[in-house]
This record gives sequence, structure tokens and C-alpha cells, in this order.
Amino acid sequence: MSSQFGHLFRISTWGESHGGGVGVVVDGCPPRLALCEADIQADLDRRRPGQSEIVTPRDEADTCQILSGVFEGQTLGTPIAVNVFNKDARPEAYREMEHAYRPSHADYTYQAKYGIRNWQGGGRSSARETIGRVAAAAIGKKVLASVCPGLEVIAYVRSIQNIQAEIDPLTVQFAQVESNIVRCPDAAVAARMIDHIKAVRSEGDSVGGIVECVVRGVPPGLGEPAFDRLEADLAKGVLSLPATKGFEIGSGFQGTTLRGSEHNDAFFMEQGRVRTRTNRSGGVQGGISNGEAIVFRVAFKPTATIFQTQATVSPAGQDVELKARGRHDACVLPRAVPMVEAMTVLVLTDHLLRQRAQNG
Amino acid sequence: MSSQFGHLFRISTWGESHGGGVGVVVDGCPPRLALCEADIQADLDRRRPGQSEIVTPRDEADTCQILSGVFEGQTLGTPIAVNVFNKDARPEAYREMEHAYRPSHADYTYQAKYGIRNWQGGGRSSARETIGRVAAAAIGKKVLASVCPGLEVIAYVRSIQNIQAEIDPLTVQFAQVESNIVRCPDAAVAARMIDHIKAVRSEGDSVGGIVECVVRGVPPGLGEPAFDRLEADLAKGVLSLPATKGFEIGSGFQGTTLRGSEHNDAFFMEQGRVRTRTNRSGGVQGGISNGEAIVFRVAFKPTATIFQTQATVSPAGQDVELKARGRHDACVLPRAVPMVEAMTVLVLTDHLLRQRAQNG
Amino acid sequence: MSSQFGHLFRISTWGESHGGGVGVVVDGCPPRLALCEADIQADLDRRRPGQSEIVTPRDEADTCQILSGVFEGQTLGTPIAVNVFNKDARPEAYREMEHAYRPSHADYTYQAKYGIRNWQGGGRSSARETIGRVAAAAIGKKVLASVCPGLEVIAYVRSIQNIQAEIDPLTVQFAQVESNIVRCPDAAVAARMIDHIKAVRSEGDSVGGIVECVVRGVPPGLGEPAFDRLEADLAKGVLSLPATKGFEIGSGFQGTTLRGSEHNDAFFMEQGRVRTRTNRSGGVQGGISNGEAIVFRVAFKPTATIFQTQATVSPAGQDVELKARGRHDACVLPRAVPMVEAMTVLVLTDHLLRQRAQNG
Amino acid sequence: MSSQFGHLFRISTWGESHGGGVGVVVDGCPPRLALCEADIQADLDRRRPGQSEIVTPRDEADTCQILSGVFEGQTLGTPIAVNVFNKDARPEAYREMEHAYRPSHADYTYQAKYGIRNWQGGGRSSARETIGRVAAAAIGKKVLASVCPGLEVIAYVRSIQNIQAEIDPLTVQFAQVESNIVRCPDAAVAARMIDHIKAVRSEGDSVGGIVECVVRGVPPGLGEPAFDRLEADLAKGVLSLPATKGFEIGSGFQGTTLRGSEHNDAFFMEQGRVRTRTNRSGGVQGGISNGEAIVFRVAFKPTATIFQTQATVSPAGQDVELKARGRHDACVLPRAVPMVEAMTVLVLTDHLLRQRAQNG
Repeated sequence: MSSQFGHLFRISTWGESHGGGVGVVVDGCPPRLALCEADIQADLDRRRPGQSEIVTPRDEADTCQILSGVFEGQTLGTPIAVNVFNKDARPEAYREMEHAYRPSHADYTYQAKYGIRNWQGGGRSSARETIGRVAAAAIGKKVLASVCPGLEVIAYVRSIQNIQAEIDPLTVQFAQVESNIVRCPDAAVAARMIDHIKAVRSEGDSVGGIVECVVRGVPPGLGEPAFDRLEADLAKGVLSLPATKGFEIGSGFQGTTLRGSEHNDAFFMEQGRVRTRTNRSGGVQGGISNGEAIVFRVAFKPTATIFQTQATVSPAGQDVELKARGRHDACVLPRAVPMVEAMTVLVLTDHLLRQRAQNG
Repeated sequence: MSSQFGHLFRISTWGESHGGGVGVVVDGCPPRLALCEADIQADLDRRRPGQSEIVTPRDEADTCQILSGVFEGQTLGTPIAVNVFNKDARPEAYREMEHAYRPSHADYTYQAKYGIRNWQGGGRSSARETIGRVAAAAIGKKVLASVCPGLEVIAYVRSIQNIQAEIDPLTVQFAQVESNIVRCPDAAVAARMIDHIKAVRSEGDSVGGIVECVVRGVPPGLGEPAFDRLEADLAKGVLSLPATKGFEIGSGFQGTTLRGSEHNDAFFMEQGRVRTRTNRSGGVQGGISNGEAIVFRVAFKPTATIFQTQATVSPAGQDVELKARGRHDACVLPRAVPMVEAMTVLVLTDHLLRQRAQNG
Repeated sequence: MSSQFGHLFRISTWGESHGGGVGVVVDGCPPRLALCEADIQADLDRRRPGQSEIVTPRDEADTCQILSGVFEGQTLGTPIAVNVFNKDARPEAYREMEHAYRPSHADYTYQAKYGIRNWQGGGRSSARETIGRVAAAAIGKKVLASVCPGLEVIAYVRSIQNIQAEIDPLTVQFAQVESNIVRCPDAAVAARMIDHIKAVRSEGDSVGGIVECVVRGVPPGLGEPAFDRLEADLAKGVLSLPATKGFEIGSGFQGTTLRGSEHNDAFFMEQGRVRTRTNRSGGVQGGISNGEAIVFRVAFKPTATIFQTQATVSPAGQDVELKARGRHDACVLPRAVPMVEAMTVLVLTDHLLRQRAQNG
Repeated sequence: MSSQFGHLFRISTWGESHGGGVGVVVDGCPPRLALCEADIQADLDRRRPGQSEIVTPRDEADTCQILSGVFEGQTLGTPIAVNVFNKDARPEAYREMEHAYRPSHADYTYQAKYGIRNWQGGGRSSARETIGRVAAAAIGKKVLASVCPGLEVIAYVRSIQNIQAEIDPLTVQFAQVESNIVRCPDAAVAARMIDHIKAVRSEGDSVGGIVECVVRGVPPGLGEPAFDRLEADLAKGVLSLPATKGFEIGSGFQGTTLRGSEHNDAFFMEQGRVRTRTNRSGGVQGGISNGEAIVFRVAFKPTATIFQTQATVSPAGQDVELKARGRHDACVLPRAVPMVEAMTVLVLTDHLLRQRAQNG
């Protein structure tokens, strides 16, 4: 139950960072969609380690293999299994973690929950677990494209620590995001972010930041009234990513300082379509998409694993010190961008099929 | 599927603001817990309209009735149905809404999704739907008390528009929250908040704010590694409440401006227990509770229904103006406090049973 | 979790035979279907006690009330709550059962599971629980009629103890089933069945029998390949009814005595449609409907509650004797017919929406 | 959704008979259970093709690989992925099936449902899909053994076409079942069954039969009152296996010919335990286990794929003839025995965890 997401487009991820591999089974995918490994690989390459000089140097090609659910280049409607084998696991670099919990990491809580943990890496709490999500979302994009041509999901780095970019969610382009290694579409600010990450890393420290995501071209009507509100499911999706601490949609926390008369989005008609003059709602009203752009932000904390000596405790219950080795991101944001997109695609795909089921 | 929440402690809410009534069915409740209607009523009274001069004057006693699942004062382990009949529905006050979508409300999106809506009130998007959640959570509290005695869930108003209170989540008491009608435990700030809400209301306008919630005494080990992370499920739970725009846990968005060396919570041993010196994690690490206080915040936008003339459109696709009548909260925050507590209790109860299932 | 059925057309039933009432919440119903209480009442009347001289004389009108999800005579797409209040509960007639488990009833197993039971009646194991199912299925029929006009679900009594009728599932009509109180469309055999039930009842004993159900006009493609096969879900649905002991589809157990060359259903083309010459498959192949009539049979054991002295044990662990009082069916079959239909409708409705979600 | 089974011990199977492989992801397994590939392989060997002269000669070692969820020989509590690669797929032997639907097979219904099918083998409808179930059940057995030591699940062949064995479910031993290749514990009857299967196969024909399964040592209290009755879930589980046509528990269809006074199982006390004198209930009353042996039977039809010329139709809608080639079981029963056991184990494991969740 823990490792599944979605009701109709349902994914089951599996794998630890330092086991045989990681992967996903996608159940409920519509049939007759063109799908091949290259479709998935393109997205995996955007999240893989070693892709640039500001991410972890762990050397994984993350080559995926489709084992089922596709026949002669088309989806069958049956479960699609995608595997990625671990190639560059170095468990010996985690030897210290056997005897010391990393502060603000999941080492202690896994031990408290299960009475056992795979200390050779981050286990399921590793960003490596997200490979299955990104692979599944690559398939979800095919579904979205077939039902809602023109729908776009674009995430990008909005801030790194105190360095902030201003980006217009209505016009930002995927190519701008991908034009630099930090995935901030403001090239000037991106350069400063990159320098900052390098400097922080050279000190054995880490930084966090904010990812913003926009969905354009979404039809009105997606989402459910009570619990499975679109924003609630988006929040759950992205906050199930490692290192996340917050989610806000539309006006978000800042919107609490406005009055209703300032905050409300006036409706008007435009070429036969209901539109809003402003978009403080962030594209969702009453839990259901209204056809405007969906815009939300996700807070990522600084990476827990740093290369400085920290006070902590051991599984044996003693106060100890830990200085981590191994290969870790000093800043997870550049790789978090495709992860946020993936969770967004998964939520939208599921709600699209749900909408089709109930409302035809 | 839309109106259910939880896996093992699963609730199904039903009802519109202006139909026969609202209610909930709670499935999976453990047997042999003492339960009577008064247990539920106490919490319903905290969320009911008409409870004070700063909330909507709709006059509903919200008297609940338990129809099943309880025998001789004890839960049977079978579904518990709780009903509340609507008494003071005044559909005529919504006559304007039949022909005009309220800006930033759910009128348009329901119509877009279903091709039909109950325009006599807010339908399922009304805060009235939360009666079922609050009733279910009153039952959930019994489960928590039986398994985790000492666990406390306390929510309170942290800010109203720009008026902010500073409250220590580690020491705040329920009686302080309930000592004033705005439910802000800082009495001096509460008085200013109350005055502000009255002033805003007199102008036919509305305001929002931030609710903070703390859970103390939670055992380590609740939550799941990948998707059903405790913070992800808390976020989903509270963002499924009406008028919410954001969620953050622990350091939240502010935490993105710190470095890892500043942000990490150092572990230490205290009387045989693993503790952390700071709590920027907000009590959850890797999706699993670590035994520290869980602390999170929820942004509520200003109420959409205001008593000023607004530009909008009609279901017939014409630009029109709307000036709402009816009875509405100028500020949802005082009543949102028990709602946030309720969703928190529901998430914790479900994860407690899940933990017991898998880990004994 | 225990009291829910269906994935997309999901129902939650609640209520004990001797509590406040029984009911159901239906989630996921498509919007804009005409629905009123009379639609539901017609089916409830077919399963209610006191309907004829061969069923239990408990006098319940089973009048239903729709409390939500319907507006101006149409479904809203939101949860539909249907309540039936218990009127003629006589808990005193169950006084003996407080101190003695009825043989082959659920008294002991409920106590073993929950450590508590409502001994004033059959609790959730009473046939009274099926009111919610029948009510939900009346709504499901509206969905089926809107998407698959012409689809018919007809159940009938095939045998009572050793009295067997031969009925052609391809031609049997609903009016024939309803033409007598035992619901066997063969009038001559029905008369013998009725006499037999009366004779058995006069001896304080009970009998069982077999209900057969046919679905005509079902489109090909309903059902899922692996676990949620249509026949597996039908079996689960009907075997979740009280007093059931067996399920077989198409050739069933008898089919195990044929060779493949005798058993296989040859395909042929008929007016552009794929048909089969025989129907030993019972309308389902590989878990998916093939467009032929779905035909299955359900075994109902003789009612456990009889009016003869029986050896049993008490909750205190002593060997005791029990002679039941109260009002009970000497034969559940006449009332089981609408229950079997109901579960069939619920399974088909759910699979129809699932099919629409995945395959458009 | 289609390819998942279980609520808390949830499995997701994937794979086609002629794709890259087949496998399963098991979610929700308790931690700290000893598990290695040999534990799983033992059960896979009992279901694999080529194991004896009376099953399909397809030569698959079905060697399994555990890819996640196990660390240093113990389960981690995280998802366990098990893969089996296909080695001896011979798609060319299915060339005829591209242009002709096999009578009573799933070829046509898959095409009708999805508009596409993998004609190179049976796709998901192949018995090969059950590898994932058997592997998952090998893990489930570990859970059962840790919580209910002494619980035994034993299935065996009760009949092949008209050859019937009489076996006492209370005393039958696993070693007896495994002592011959048809898995009928009555050695004399088994010899006749084997001869019959060989004879039928030599004629290019096929036969079916009945598998009986007994569960001994099950604690009282497993199962749920309304929908997820233990017998309903067992029925769903086994009827989701290929080629099944019927399920009956305890007295089954034959029990419909008894009166209540003959059918009821009298309770008595034995060494402080509640027991029944007879077991027509088959170990389940009111959907919940009563501590007696659970006994049920499953009807398997004769294999659809036979080596005789049959009338059928083509995907192009023309009447054609088909004479199958390839390697197929003339009788699925010997290999169905471990499949029935597997589904039984999966149902029991899930209900055991559910019971622990709700009732401690």
C-alpha cells in the first residue's frame, strides 16, 4: 500500500538505492499508445545522477528496460513493468551509516518503524526511488497527449537558497528550462545559482530551494469535490518526494494577506470560454480545474547528507559523531524538476481517467 | 472514490449544504471503544455555524445521531453511521447563484465537471461537508487514545490577514485555544483579530489566514516510505478542506533559505530515547514520524463569497454582475481550527492501524 | 474496508438488523441520471420481509429516504446517501441468543473476531444488511440503462432443496419470475416449491436451494485479465451474500466431466458480430465478457435459525441447548433473488465505468 | 487496478507469456522475516512447465530473482520485487492465432476489450501469469508461519474428468500430494488419472477436474462481515485463476439438498475451545473463520487449446478453421494445485494483517 500511487493509472514502485535495482509496474494504462524505451529514457536522463557538474557524481546510466505490457511498439492495456538495474552502487561508502544515523535523514525513522534498514545507501528514502515515478510519468504523458493534446507540464527552479528568479508561468518554455544545468529558465539568475551550488559544495555543505510547476492547457473538470481535490492530490504527490517541506498553489501563503475582494478571480467570457481575469486560484477552484493554468510551488530543504562532522546517535543508543562520505547532491533542485513534473503528470493522468469513467 | 478518506480507518462523507443533511460512515473502527453521541457533539459544536459573533449566523445545532456500529455504549467493529440533518437551509438566498457563478467559488467548476450542480448553497464544496470529517475524527480520537495515550492534536489560528501571533507549539494548551472565539491562544493578538474580522465583515468583505497544528506524543514509526509519507498524507488531508492554498511542515518554505549545516536536526540520547536538538523536520523524517512534535501550517484564503458587487459570468455564457446574499463566514479560520484537527486525527488514526498491521 | 464494494461505483453499507437503521452511501455515480425514491423502493419491496406468506413476517415497510446526491430529480455526481430506518425490531425475541450461539450462524465468529456483538438480531450478518446493496443496485441500474440500453439482469429460483426447475436463461422474462411468491418462473414447479417451504416451516425447519442469474445484452469487453475477472468479481459479489455456499458459471462443476473438444464454444460470425454456437463459457472468457449471455448459479444453504432445540455453547464456554424464537425465513431463496440481481448489477456497473476509464 | 490483489499484503503481477518475463511486486510485507530465492523457487518448481510427462513440455526453469525488499536475508518491510525471465518462448508456434481466435480462450475477448492483443502466446491469460502469484504466496507463507505457526494450506486433485478420489481433508498430508505427478493423494486413483491424461493428450484433446483445498490450524476471527467475507475473497482469489468455472465451500451445492436441522453444525466445548461436531460450514460462518478446517473445491474446465481442427473466426471477421500447434497442458490440474494454494495463502495473509490492524 505504501508504494502505490493513483487509482486508475496506478503505479507500484520498488527498489532500494543499493539493492539489485529499481523499477515500477504501471497498471491501468490505456491500450494502443505508441511506447518504446527511448520515450522513457529521455525523462530518466533528466533525473539521473552524473548528468552535470552540480549533481551527485554517482555514475548511473539508468538504462531502462520494458518487460511487459507493450507489443509491437504499442501498449497492450496490461501492466507495464519497467526495470533499471543499479550499476554503480558502492555500499562500502556507507559503512559509517551502519553505526550512526544521519541527522535529518530517514536512517533513524526506518529503524524505528521496521526494526531493520538497508544502511548501504538511502534504501527507499533515496532519490533513486523516484526512477520508477519518472518512468511511469513518461507513460502518463502518452495518455495525456492522446486525450488532451496541447496539455503542457513544465517545472523549473524558482529559487536556490536566497537567489530568486522571476519567471512568467504563462510563457515559460521547456527549452528555456533545459538550457542550463540548474534548470532555471532565467539564464542570468541560473548562472548565479550554479556558482552558488558549487561554492556550497566545496564547503561540504548543501542548499535547498523552490521548484515551481505550471500546467497549461488542462481541461476544466479534473479533480473531485471532497477529498481527492486536484490540489490535495498534487500536494500529496509532490510532498511524497524526498526533501520536500511545503506546497502552495496559486496565491498560496501570500494570499492569506489579501482580502476577498482583492483575491477573488473575476470570471469573464472569452470566445465562448469561461475565463478568469486573474489566477490567484492557481487553476483550481473547489478542488476542480477551471481551465486556467495550474501553478504551484514546492519547497525543498537543503540535502541532509553533508560532508561536515555532525553530532548524532548510533543504533546502539550512544551519542556519536558522523562525517559522511559517499556521493551526494549538494542541491537536489536540478534533479527535482523532472520529479515534480512526474508527480504532476501522474496526478493528472489518474484524474483524467477518473473523469472519463464518471462523466464520460 | 471521491468522497472517501483513509485506508484502514476509512470514512465516507455525504451530503450537500442544502439537501436533507450531511453525514459520514466510518469503516474499520476497532471494537470495544466507549462511544456516544456526546463525544461527537463536542467537536461538532466547535465547527458549527452560529457559535459566535464572528462566524456565519446560519442557525444549525448540528445535532448528530449515531445509527449503527455502537451497542450498549461500545463500538462493534462494524461501520458507524453518523447523520446530521440540515435544519436552517435557506435555498432562496442562493437564487442569484442559479444564474451567476460566484468568483473563486466552486460554482463554475462543478458545472464544468458534472453538467449539473445544486445551486442552492455550496453543495459539496460547502464547509458543511466537513461535519462528517469532524464526526469521524471524534471517533478517531478514541482509537488514538486507546493505543497512544497522551497523544495530543492541537490546532490554532496563527495569523489573520497581516495580524500574526507567535505561539510555542511545544507548550500551547487546548484551553488557551478555546479561550476566545477566534481560537488564537495569544489573547492579546486574538482580540485584535476579532476586531479586524468584524471590521472586514461590516464592509462586506472577507479575510483569510494561517492555522498551525501541533501533534505531541506521537510515537516514532508512523508513515510510509514512498508515497504515503506522513507529511504527504497530512498535506492531502488538510488541503482537501475548503479554502486552503498551502501547507508547510517544520521549517517549510523558510527552510529553503538555510544551508544543510544549519537546517539538520542533530540527534542526541535523552533517557534512552532518541531525540533531536532542533525540530526543523517538523517531527517527520523520510516520511515517518521521529517522535518529536509534528508541526505544520495551513494557508486559508479569504472567503470567496463576499457581499460586494463582482463581475462574473452566467451558466448561459453571459457576462453578468453578482452581489451575494445569504449567510457566510467573513473569515473561515475560527471554524477551520477543528477541521484541521479532524483531518490530522484521521491521518494519524489510519497510519496507526497501518503500522499495527504491518509491524505488529 | 470491510463494508465497501466496487472501485468506481463504490458503495458503503452500514447498519445492524436491530440498531437505528440500515443504509448505503453510493460514491462515483455518474451525474444527470433521473433518480427518485420510487425507483429504489420498487426493488426494496422485492426483498423486504413480510412480502408474502413464505417469508419472515417481520413487518418492515423498508421505506427509503434519499438524503444527498440528487437535485431536482437528477443525480449530481456526488455521494448518494440512502437510509432505511428499522421500525419493527424486537430485540427481546433474541434474548436467548445473548447466552447461546446459534449453530451455523455468525454469533460465535463475530464474538471471536471483535470480542463484542450485537446479540439483538443478526447484526451485520442479517439479511437486513442487504437493503443497502439493493438500494445501491437500483441506482446502478440507471447507469447501466444509460450506457447499455437493453442490458437485462434476471435472477430466479432454480431449485428448492430437491425440487428443481428447468428454465431457459435465454428467454426467461422478469414478469414470469415475479408471477409467484417463490420467484421460480416455472409456475408448476413453483407451486410445489411453495407447498414444500410451508411444510418445512410448519416443522420448525428450513431449506435452501439454488438461484440462477442471467445477464443478457452485455457488451463484450467487461472484466479484467488477471485478478478482477468478471466471473471472479461476480463470485465475490454473490458469495458475500448471507447463506451462500457456492458459485458456478456456464458449465460450472458439471463442465469438468467434458473433454475440451466437447466443452469449447465454437465461434462464428452472425450479422457482423462474433458469436458462439454454445455457451459453456457462460458469457465470460479469460475474465472478460464475450457478448453472449452471462449465466451463473449460486447455492444457498438452509437458513441457520430454526425453531427446533439444538445443542450449542454459550459465550461463557458451557454446553447449552437453544430453541430459537423470533421471526425468520424458513427459506431465504425468494428474497435472495433480488439480492443476487443487486450484486450482479453492482459488479457490472463498476466494470462498465472501469472499461470506460481505460478504454474510452 | 486489474493486476493487483490484496489490501494490506498487496501484490502487483505483470508480464505476458511471450514477452520479456513475468513477475510480481509485493507491498506491505512485514519486516524481519527470513527470505531467500530458494524459498520462492521451491513453490515455482511445483507450478513450472516441463516438470513431468503430463504437463506442457515448454522448457522453463522459471528461475526467480529477488530485486528489492530483502537485506542480509531478511525482509525490509519495503516492496519485494521478484522477476522471472522467459527463456523458451516460441512465438512462431502461435502464428495461426494471429488470424484465428482460439475457441473458449481469451483471444477474442482481449481483442474486444483493448483493440489489441499479444497473439504470441496467451498474453496475460496464460497460466504463466500465475508465476507472480505463486512467488508472492511463498512470501505470504513466511508471514503466516510467523503469526500462525501450525497453519497448513494443502490443495490436491480431487477429480479428473469422471475419475474421482475420496480424500479426508482433515488428515491429508503434503507429502502424499507430492508423491505423484498428478498431485492426487490417493495413489491408486492417481495412477488412473495419469493414464487418462496421457490418453486424452494423445488424441489431441484435453480434460478438466476439481481441486480441493484444506486450511488447517486457522485461528477464528479472520474475514469480514459484509463484502470481504473470507469465503467471498477465497472464491474471488481462486476464480481469478485461468480455466476456473466454479467454487464451493463446505457442503457447497450439495448442501442445498439438506434441511437446516441436518445442515447446521452443532457447537460443543473441547478443552476450552469452541468446536463444531460437523463442518458443513467449511470453516467459515458469517464470512469469518470459526477455527475449524476451511475446505473448498474449485472446478477447472478442460484446457481450451486443443490439437484438433475447430471452427472459429478471424479478427477480420471471417469464419475460419484453426488447428493449434505449440505446447500446452492437456490437463491443467497438476499445476493448478500450487496455484490454488497460492491464492489461498494470499487471501489468508491479507486477512491476517487486516485482523491485526483492526482488532490488535
